[in-house]
Amino acid sequence: MASFALHPQLAAETIPMMDLPLCKVLLMNDRQYPWLILVPQVRDAREFTDLMPNEQQQLWAEILAVQTALRDVTRPHKLNVAALGNLVPQLHIHIIARFDYDPAWPRPVWGVLPAQPYSPMEAGEVITRLRPLLDRAARSL
Amino acid sequence: MASFALHPQLAAETIPMMDLPLCKVLLMNDRQYPWLILVPQVRDAREFTDLMPNEQQQLWAEILAVQTALRDVTRPHKLNVAALGNLVPQLHIHIIARFDYDPAWPRPVWGVLPAQPYSPMEAGEVITRLRPLLDRAARSL
Repeated sequence: MASFALHPQLAAETIPMMDLPLCKVLLMNDRQYPWLILVPQVRDAREFTDLMPNEQQQLWAEILAVQTALRDVTRPHKLNVAALGNLVPQLHIHIIARFDYDPAWPRPVWGVLPAQPYSPMEAGEVITRLRPLLDRAARSL
Repeated sequence: MASFALHPQLAAETIPMMDLPLCKVLLMNDRQYPWLILVPQVRDAREFTDLMPNEQQQLWAEILAVQTALRDVTRPHKLNVAALGNLVPQLHIHIIARFDYDPAWPRPVWGVLPAQPYSPMEAGEVITRLRPLLDRAARSL
């Protein structure tokens, strides 16, 4: 993990939240959706199958823990969990809380609307809401 | 699992391939992309967190095995793996082989283009290509 570096596009579009044992947890800087991204800190990983078996198991545990935290904080209509990577090849997993009144519903969020960055105050509020349950998730891992 | 029933929309849009210990494996009836769908045979499951821990572990093993099989058969540019469910609430996981020359690239596939159903001969060919590696995947589970 010493040589892992976050892809510049992910770094530019997100706000760092915390590091779990395997993944960085990032908040997508788009106030339209509560949207977290997990990035396994493994160099050159593009697919789940590029990870070692123990890393694959840890990733799944972290996906489940983070989606539980996001669900419990936001109480969404539906969670969307996806690893796409057509544009940013570095393996990353989207975990998005969807509501039937959000601006892309019921479509997937990608490419539908330009991101609307958080104001600093809004970002602080979202992070303050998410942080305790993410900390609890981290302790469960 | 006795009372599990496949959602009618999934049944209408796919071709059944096989049953794994947890999931049904379906082929999306769209010749534009090699596109499999896993459906855990668990009644009323909408999110990963609706599954029991042993079912969650089995689902992850089946996702990894099926994506490995699809990768080895199709050699795609990228795999897309996603659980969305905004339109069909029954928990289902898309595993899609993407190519930089496919008609939706680099966008996600959902909602971009109408499905183009396989001809019976094409469907037979695709199933014949996929079946041996899916059988191998099934034996690994």
